[in-house]
Amino acid sequence: MRQDRFYTLSAACPDQVGIIARVTGFIAAHGGWILESRFHADEVTGRYFMRLEIKADTLPFLLAAFRERFAAEVAEPLAMNWRITDSAVKKRVVILVSRQEHCLYDLLARWQSKELDIEIPCVISNHDSLRGVVEWHGIPFIHVPVGKDDPAAANAEIGRIVEDARGDTVVLARYMQILSPELCAALAGRIINIHHSFLPSFVGARPYHQAYARGVKLIGATCHYVTRELDAGPIIEQDVIRIDHSDSPEDMVRYGKDIEKTVLARGLRYHLEDRVLVDGNKTVVFR
Amino acid sequence: MRQDRFYTLSAACPDQVGIIARVTGFIAAHGGWILESRFHADEVTGRYFMRLEIKADTLPFLLAAFRERFAAEVAEPLAMNWRITDSAVKKRVVILVSRQEHCLYDLLARWQSKELDIEIPCVISNHDSLRGVVEWHGIPFIHVPVGKDDPAAANAEIGRIVEDARGDTVVLARYMQILSPELCAALAGRIINIHHSFLPSFVGARPYHQAYARGVKLIGATCHYVTRELDAGPIIEQDVIRIDHSDSPEDMVRYGKDIEKTVLARGLRYHLEDRVLVDGNKTVVFR
Amino acid sequence: MRQDRFYTLSAACPDQVGIIARVTGFIAAHGGWILESRFHADEVTGRYFMRLEIKADTLPFLLAAFRERFAAEVAEPLAMNWRITDSAVKKRVVILVSRQEHCLYDLLARWQSKELDIEIPCVISNHDSLRGVVEWHGIPFIHVPVGKDDPAAANAEIGRIVEDARGDTVVLARYMQILSPELCAALAGRIINIHHSFLPSFVGARPYHQAYARGVKLIGATCHYVTRELDAGPIIEQDVIRIDHSDSPEDMVRYGKDIEKTVLARGLRYHLEDRVLVDGNKTVVFR
Amino acid sequence: MRQDRFYTLSAACPDQVGIIARVTGFIAAHGGWILESRFHADEVTGRYFMRLEIKADTLPFLLAAFRERFAAEVAEPLAMNWRITDSAVKKRVVILVSRQEHCLYDLLARWQSKELDIEIPCVISNHDSLRGVVEWHGIPFIHVPVGKDDPAAANAEIGRIVEDARGDTVVLARYMQILSPELCAALAGRIINIHHSFLPSFVGARPYHQAYARGVKLIGATCHYVTRELDAGPIIEQDVIRIDHSDSPEDMVRYGKDIEKTVLARGLRYHLEDRVLVDGNKTVVFR
Repeated sequence: MRQDRFYTLSAACPDQVGIIARVTGFIAAHGGWILESRFHADEVTGRYFMRLEIKADTLPFLLAAFRERFAAEVAEPLAMNWRITDSAVKKRVVILVSRQEHCLYDLLARWQSKELDIEIPCVISNHDSLRGVVEWHGIPFIHVPVGKDDPAAANAEIGRIVEDARGDTVVLARYMQILSPELCAALAGRIINIHHSFLPSFVGARPYHQAYARGVKLIGATCHYVTRELDAGPIIEQDVIRIDHSDSPEDMVRYGKDIEKTVLARGLRYHLEDRVLVDGNKTVVFR
Repeated sequence: MRQDRFYTLSAACPDQVGIIARVTGFIAAHGGWILESRFHADEVTGRYFMRLEIKADTLPFLLAAFRERFAAEVAEPLAMNWRITDSAVKKRVVILVSRQEHCLYDLLARWQSKELDIEIPCVISNHDSLRGVVEWHGIPFIHVPVGKDDPAAANAEIGRIVEDARGDTVVLARYMQILSPELCAALAGRIINIHHSFLPSFVGARPYHQAYARGVKLIGATCHYVTRELDAGPIIEQDVIRIDHSDSPEDMVRYGKDIEKTVLARGLRYHLEDRVLVDGNKTVVFR
Repeated sequence: MRQDRFYTLSAACPDQVGIIARVTGFIAAHGGWILESRFHADEVTGRYFMRLEIKADTLPFLLAAFRERFAAEVAEPLAMNWRITDSAVKKRVVILVSRQEHCLYDLLARWQSKELDIEIPCVISNHDSLRGVVEWHGIPFIHVPVGKDDPAAANAEIGRIVEDARGDTVVLARYMQILSPELCAALAGRIINIHHSFLPSFVGARPYHQAYARGVKLIGATCHYVTRELDAGPIIEQDVIRIDHSDSPEDMVRYGKDIEKTVLARGLRYHLEDRVLVDGNKTVVFR
Repeated sequence: MRQDRFYTLSAACPDQVGIIARVTGFIAAHGGWILESRFHADEVTGRYFMRLEIKADTLPFLLAAFRERFAAEVAEPLAMNWRITDSAVKKRVVILVSRQEHCLYDLLARWQSKELDIEIPCVISNHDSLRGVVEWHGIPFIHVPVGKDDPAAANAEIGRIVEDARGDTVVLARYMQILSPELCAALAGRIINIHHSFLPSFVGARPYHQAYARGVKLIGATCHYVTRELDAGPIIEQDVIRIDHSDSPEDMVRYGKDIEKTVLARGLRYHLEDRVLVDGNKTVVFR
């Protein structure tokens, strides 16, 4: 939400004395103005996580030079996994949908108002029903039917489309097909799903019907990274809404949609702003 | 969310012994199957409120006959204000917007998916910027500029358009103009607004900036009936979201949009399903 | 929270036309003033549920006479399971605790302020550590150690104590022992537990540690009736609280306590006010 | 919640390049292990805020030496307001109550379980009714009646008691008297109140009755620092709970108590852990 151009540095490394001093010392030595900074130590794993926003025009060099120097002087000595991104470069997000439109409309509205300041190179669907609204927005719509006999072909095609589109991130906006292990592996840490339950409750199909059967008093939704194991990837964001005995499974579906789209939008924003760092099968989210 | 056709009876009357027995006795005497029923006594005002859903095909007569008999046998003796609506007759909702699209997109998505099973005879706006998406959905878009010198003319035109469109309900979906007292009076109990604060806090302009200045830890939105007094009409629904010191007014605007559209959609649904009964300057909401 | 004495009628029966008319017709015929009423049809099971509060002094007969007449004229023809309770008769609640004091203190404060207008004939514990505060409040404290070799003896003793104390309800206020199937059966529908997770997630031991391991973003608590199957009884109330990556399992335990005591207090109140009707393995809660 | 002894450094200063580097550089130079760190820039006021937890035994000197060196080398050059506290030194909290016991019991339970690891040198009340439970816990109870004619005398006495007790913090746990401007000034930033509304709504007396009259759909509570202006001090924490038309003001009082005690406990904990930094009439809360 900032006007000024800035770089976002996110990193993880083994914990030790002096990490913050070293990182921020490097930045300060070059006159870099830190707009926002967050740090976290996972005391169980001994990993250290950080995220910093640096005002771009306060640094005396460009990003390429920053990368080179920071790698040599800071990242390598600290054995860091790290990345730095530039707020002037828009992320490219490929959206996958099926028939339900609530998450798609929600993302389109956020994109239209520039709240979500991204490129959407294309929307992919296993149905053709949402073509109209997508194309009206000037976004290419690609219909990739998923055959029961040969889902691998569809998955391969999706992979090619994402690659051709130079998609940074793939969003499953209520895409009702299971991705192949190959695609999950190829796009590891870059596929975001919205699952319509408060995981780990009600994994798999028809979670609202499962929730109805169990008689829970709150239902929820979970935004998570997709991994090979169904609905088991690192959780980015969750939320719930209150229901009661008078709500049918169909009512829950309706309430649930509001939670799904909100949780997906929040989780996606955290991801796009490099606020999410994966820590084993969990996430550090610097909101 | 029901499949079967049903009638919704909503009513208010002075409290006394035997109201439920009389109303449900009448329905049972004709074989009417009550799907859902809610009752409420306001012990301060002595008013009694109710809402019942009756399966249409269990009654031996049509709605006109029901109206006549119920009036004579039940409503008049109990001095009732009442109405009965038919689930087979779609409500007609006129939407007013300005430049912000989040509530509009949200309502369109719900209408498109039939979650909101209404007619939208037209969308009215004091700007022309949202014409495209509205017309793409096959809904007429009417641009009614509001002149600084003569807002009365615009208000009169809005009133005519709503009347011509036979609008049951008018939704101010972040419409940033104040309606004239005449229009408020003419459409009393039928205009629903979404205000971007948790009323009664932060009445008037720029509530998120007011919230920022006061340093509150939660921000909210309020769906209410519009009356002559600004932001003071009966409240239908409210909700809040947590913020913290790191959120700028612009961040609050962004978070607030998610609350606004959700609260508006909930409040509108309650209204359209005849779940809201006005009780002085308050509402009874039979969710 | 009413000043006036009232009777609470709660009932379930097979759904058919005219139930409300029949029940409220009986009450109205005797001049009974209905303070509050709620009805619910479970469309899946075809069962019908209701709860009514009737002002005691508007009826021309006492509760015994009400029971006799209502049974013959209404309940039997409708094949009802029903009960009626008198607000002037305090419920008797036996509390079971282990070492943790948060739920106990919370219940004592509510009892002390008469928010919870009950008798507490005794507190039972498998430890002796909370004796002081209980006895200071004038409530008998009974230490029933649970031997590893012979838990059946302790369970039998608890059963005897509850029976001697004429306990209507048993509250497991973080009682960390599993009750025997015999005791569960003997007190079916009368034992309320607070489980420290948002069931059905994290059944069994150390749920906060399970939640930490899975990386969820909200933790919760569940108030439910105790049945033979561990943590699987009908859910009365649930709630959640937001956590993040910086919270250790110990932090979650601390946050969780606030949810536990609130959820237990709400669930217990619903139960004591006869607002909870069991519907298979689910509950109807007329809040 | 940490086992190891640590120091908590909290500070505010004018924003400039290199603050984090300077502070953490000083700590790292002496081998200090940073357990937790948070930073915040207020872009409107240009003030910079921070909080760090440093493992005590990783530093080669004691707190007095740290204070001296840090002041000279870091704090003075940066024009810092700062403090450092030692987790081994318990804070001393004086509690003021009136007749209502819910917040008091809640604080006592947290103190008893060591969740709140503080000293409570005494409880002061304008009534004598809660003496018993306080003294049972081994805490002195001081009755300071507040005369209508001479509240100044009571305020002066409270001031003396707090001073004699070397109270770091004063908690108004539903203390229903207004403190004198002198006392507010003398203990500025050290008195925490719980107000039973979601401020700035419903300032002053009987907020639940105000909320009932306005017909709001959520009620709340606010924990804030006490200043001369009633209910207008910097807000530390807030929360809300859903109500509906069926809730009387007395019901709201009951629901509200649960929010009050939870919000007070959270706000107090943030304050005691030096997580709250005052920024004009707002707070930075490093949760």
